[in-house]
Amino acid sequence: MQIGIVGLGRMGGNIGRRLMRAGHQCVVYDHNPQATDTLAKEGATGASDLGDLVAKLDAPRVVWLMLPAGKITEDTLTDLQRILKADDVVIDGGNSFYKDDIRRAAQLREIGVHYVDVGTSGGVWGLERGYCMMIGGDVDVVKRIDPILSTLAPGRGDVPATPNRDGRDPRVENGYMHTGPVGSGHFVKMVHNGIEYGLMQAYAEGFHILRHKDLAELPEAERYTLDLADVAEVWRRGSVVSSWLLDLTAGALAQDGQLEHFSTEVADSGEGRWTIEAAIEEAVPAQVLSAALYTRFRSRDAESFPERMLSAMRFGFGGHKEFPVK
Amino acid sequence: MQIGIVGLGRMGGNIGRRLMRAGHQCVVYDHNPQATDTLAKEGATGASDLGDLVAKLDAPRVVWLMLPAGKITEDTLTDLQRILKADDVVIDGGNSFYKDDIRRAAQLREIGVHYVDVGTSGGVWGLERGYCMMIGGDVDVVKRIDPILSTLAPGRGDVPATPNRDGRDPRVENGYMHTGPVGSGHFVKMVHNGIEYGLMQAYAEGFHILRHKDLAELPEAERYTLDLADVAEVWRRGSVVSSWLLDLTAGALAQDGQLEHFSTEVADSGEGRWTIEAAIEEAVPAQVLSAALYTRFRSRDAESFPERMLSAMRFGFGGHKEFPVK
Amino acid sequence: MQIGIVGLGRMGGNIGRRLMRAGHQCVVYDHNPQATDTLAKEGATGASDLGDLVAKLDAPRVVWLMLPAGKITEDTLTDLQRILKADDVVIDGGNSFYKDDIRRAAQLREIGVHYVDVGTSGGVWGLERGYCMMIGGDVDVVKRIDPILSTLAPGRGDVPATPNRDGRDPRVENGYMHTGPVGSGHFVKMVHNGIEYGLMQAYAEGFHILRHKDLAELPEAERYTLDLADVAEVWRRGSVVSSWLLDLTAGALAQDGQLEHFSTEVADSGEGRWTIEAAIEEAVPAQVLSAALYTRFRSRDAESFPERMLSAMRFGFGGHKEFPVK
Amino acid sequence: MQIGIVGLGRMGGNIGRRLMRAGHQCVVYDHNPQATDTLAKEGATGASDLGDLVAKLDAPRVVWLMLPAGKITEDTLTDLQRILKADDVVIDGGNSFYKDDIRRAAQLREIGVHYVDVGTSGGVWGLERGYCMMIGGDVDVVKRIDPILSTLAPGRGDVPATPNRDGRDPRVENGYMHTGPVGSGHFVKMVHNGIEYGLMQAYAEGFHILRHKDLAELPEAERYTLDLADVAEVWRRGSVVSSWLLDLTAGALAQDGQLEHFSTEVADSGEGRWTIEAAIEEAVPAQVLSAALYTRFRSRDAESFPERMLSAMRFGFGGHKEFPVK
Repeated sequence: MQIGIVGLGRMGGNIGRRLMRAGHQCVVYDHNPQATDTLAKEGATGASDLGDLVAKLDAPRVVWLMLPAGKITEDTLTDLQRILKADDVVIDGGNSFYKDDIRRAAQLREIGVHYVDVGTSGGVWGLERGYCMMIGGDVDVVKRIDPILSTLAPGRGDVPATPNRDGRDPRVENGYMHTGPVGSGHFVKMVHNGIEYGLMQAYAEGFHILRHKDLAELPEAERYTLDLADVAEVWRRGSVVSSWLLDLTAGALAQDGQLEHFSTEVADSGEGRWTIEAAIEEAVPAQVLSAALYTRFRSRDAESFPERMLSAMRFGFGGHKEFPVK
Repeated sequence: MQIGIVGLGRMGGNIGRRLMRAGHQCVVYDHNPQATDTLAKEGATGASDLGDLVAKLDAPRVVWLMLPAGKITEDTLTDLQRILKADDVVIDGGNSFYKDDIRRAAQLREIGVHYVDVGTSGGVWGLERGYCMMIGGDVDVVKRIDPILSTLAPGRGDVPATPNRDGRDPRVENGYMHTGPVGSGHFVKMVHNGIEYGLMQAYAEGFHILRHKDLAELPEAERYTLDLADVAEVWRRGSVVSSWLLDLTAGALAQDGQLEHFSTEVADSGEGRWTIEAAIEEAVPAQVLSAALYTRFRSRDAESFPERMLSAMRFGFGGHKEFPVK
Repeated sequence: MQIGIVGLGRMGGNIGRRLMRAGHQCVVYDHNPQATDTLAKEGATGASDLGDLVAKLDAPRVVWLMLPAGKITEDTLTDLQRILKADDVVIDGGNSFYKDDIRRAAQLREIGVHYVDVGTSGGVWGLERGYCMMIGGDVDVVKRIDPILSTLAPGRGDVPATPNRDGRDPRVENGYMHTGPVGSGHFVKMVHNGIEYGLMQAYAEGFHILRHKDLAELPEAERYTLDLADVAEVWRRGSVVSSWLLDLTAGALAQDGQLEHFSTEVADSGEGRWTIEAAIEEAVPAQVLSAALYTRFRSRDAESFPERMLSAMRFGFGGHKEFPVK
Repeated sequence: MQIGIVGLGRMGGNIGRRLMRAGHQCVVYDHNPQATDTLAKEGATGASDLGDLVAKLDAPRVVWLMLPAGKITEDTLTDLQRILKADDVVIDGGNSFYKDDIRRAAQLREIGVHYVDVGTSGGVWGLERGYCMMIGGDVDVVKRIDPILSTLAPGRGDVPATPNRDGRDPRVENGYMHTGPVGSGHFVKMVHNGIEYGLMQAYAEGFHILRHKDLAELPEAERYTLDLADVAEVWRRGSVVSSWLLDLTAGALAQDGQLEHFSTEVADSGEGRWTIEAAIEEAVPAQVLSAALYTRFRSRDAESFPERMLSAMRFGFGGHKEFPVK
């Protein structure tokens, strides 16, 4: 089917490519004309601006936004609100906050435009592997765009089937799920990323313990110098902790067991923070997911004020008699 | 090759079966004669006690213990120490504490008996999938038992190869690793289990947040009733959090989305605790792995003393004037 | 000076009493007429409704709200907005969210009414000990109500002076602080409560460890049956962990070392949650404060879904072969 | 009464001084002769070595060790074991591990020497304020040294009495407690320090949140520049979080609100680690105490390996296609 794509970064561009490979017709626009040209050369119809993109699509239109969450997505939706018509569909495939989805959908509903939020996992691997998608929106709108969704999804592949799924929605086993009303797609994707933080941190802590098993402070008989690349690799085979993140870790360690070229400052995107806020709203304890987020915060703190405060207290009760309490 | 197996529970029995299927000759013993008989009927040579088992093995012998960590393993090793001869090999395939391995190996070394510790992951799936093994011991002893290890290991299977591994130990890609000196096999397996706790807890917290998104306390527009079985299933397909533990979770949820028949009290084995102790010995922060362990402790605490202490304090500063501080 | 007080619960009533004892004139109103009567009998001027209260105050008026945070405070402010006049002052002495303060102050500013937020600590002890207050608002408005604030504050008492405070704001040493613009008073009080959660949890965990030192699982020589009431009491004398919360704990334990009559479910007020949200907004790691909050969440979770999920996974990899992954 | 003191550092020297001020007779020894001389000039009897110290004491002797935990204490006890006689008493007033106490007491018991462990809190303030002491040992031995203990203890001072303590051991209200058998004194002191870590971290996190409330990333209307020295000071007056640690914090901040001269690397002594190990042995969740310890570990980690591992994973799924998983 025909679709408009706004935002042709790494994700948006590949989404277009995967759709075109399957015969879909893509009208594309990026604020950077070179990005638009690149995809046009690969078979897409380039558009010079949002208006041009909308003009080149047949009504009722389907426009997929693949933009950074926040101001850019917000501004683009404001612009689209002026030029789209009743029964058109806007899909936000980025990492928007689900409460923003709910607000935006209500605004667009007033002019008859449908809104669908798609949480998209798969990163740079999606072009080949397909994108795991969590989709929020009205039932019939989600159905209308199914040709797009089923093409983007990974499909069953050679992932072994889970038993007892007879009679369940077959889309799920193809890697895309209609999670519920507007916002629910991004909500589920948000929690997905929260879990991702926790998984990553569990591996990082474990490998840290393995790495420091050779510390000079330990009794000599209890010191081991472990090959972390091999440990990661062997765990990929039949162990309980095998996962895709472990696959990636094994790949990184095989290249450089010291990981010397990687940053010690770890960014966090909105989803990790929003996940904790959701946990707090629901009164759900989220110790592991919080700890994972805080580790990233800590990695970027060059000031170490709380640590200096601990030192000050230690000095206060154990050090010199700087000021008399009594 | 020929091997003696002591302990024919779920793990030990299947290890014997997997070895026999590949043509190895197994002499087996379990303190429960029925278990011995069962395996004998499947082709093993049954032994009536440890002495009988040792007598039925050709020197130099190889004896694999697959017993619960702790007293039983300890007692069996004490008995074996009396009847084994120089150059025999004892393998502890259970979940022993690595510091016990170091102590035991030193004792056996005095009479010329070799000790190998094998951390074995794979659980009930090992018979078919093979066992991921982490092996501590002397280089030539580990080589001597390679026919056994390579049979038990999963092999390369269809797990995609990690690039940049040329020139590395090929055993690792077959799912078994010689990790270093005695104790290192169980040490690496211990950390594996510590990570396992962290991964499991990350999923549990995330699904808890998903599940409570329908709470009546939340604003109505922000409530979703999510199908957790479908969420787990869709994440198996191309998402960043795909893993074997997620496969198992998807399976459990497909059977019963409420997980009603599962215990609210979660056991912990020694490895989770030892992992934290190792982290503390190395001064490695292990926030996530600790939190995962503590959740299990908490699940078994029926007394709730600390919570009552919090209530008492709250009552003290906010409630009635029970006692005058001043 | 003259002041109106709305809300005569435990806090509001005692604030009126402490002010009247010092000669201030209080016009009071509570939606429960009995509460109004009680204070009227103690010397206050009772009002029959908000309008009556405003009518009985001389312009420019000062009205102190001491109401539960949320809807009641919000509604009362909406009502007051209609009847107050330019240059009147509204003080919110409750536990409102600081972002609500900012919004409300902006609304009131439009009609020339000043808004002051006062975070008030001291609980049921405030009548005698005075109230520790953190105050947000314009400099001259805060000065205008200083007679009220200085009366409510604890004063220097016999708390030892901190050195190096020459030239600093003397109000602080009397127990009240002008923290900055509107909202900052409640913000500082909010963090105060967040810290309070952390301190309480630290004591609760420590006493839990002391209490279980008599567990039958421990080696007999390492078991102690400790008198927790005595431990709390001895720590009040010269130890590093002495605090007012410890005083309260010692009092509770002296009454009942088992704390049997206290609830195992621990409530949390908004401040603990907002503190974590503030930490996340600022990218500040708040591991301890989060853990303290989560313990309270956990104490009220009767369902134990995440624990059952852990059990399900354990069953999946270690139990019976319920479903084939391959 | 007469007492020998071994180890005249900041703690040992002041313990001697406090005892001499009360008329006790001290025979003192430090491996640094200058330390011995200093105290001799203040009225003590100096000893040139352990043998000399023992020779100068009347039987049955009482010897107080105030040495760093670990090897020095161990070696000194080994030496004393050779020269002390039946019915002599050795007191370990340092921060020894309670399991070491149990072992040592058993060894000394064989030659009839009594062992008492005293956990001592109070730091550099003890000389004036007295020492809060937790004491493990046999009932009659602890009674025998009561003149020493009651002198070192803070006494009732002006700390308000806790109600409902009639009929309880009066020593406790004087600041020293016989906690139980050998080891229990150091065990209670160990948990005291564990709690101390938690309390300190709760304050540090809270002040960190206050400090960063002026971040440029925050909405301008929600930014506050808070005077942390004043906040700490005002909380000392009638607030729920008042404590001695807060007194010290207020003192440090009044000197320098940036705490610039304090180390960003925070040491941890054995007690914090042992507390977590005890929690694990007892299956007690100790989330807050662990988090406090881990913050210190993290403060000293210059390598940031786990953070680099997180970056490597992020690169793996979000960055360039460095290696094909499939």
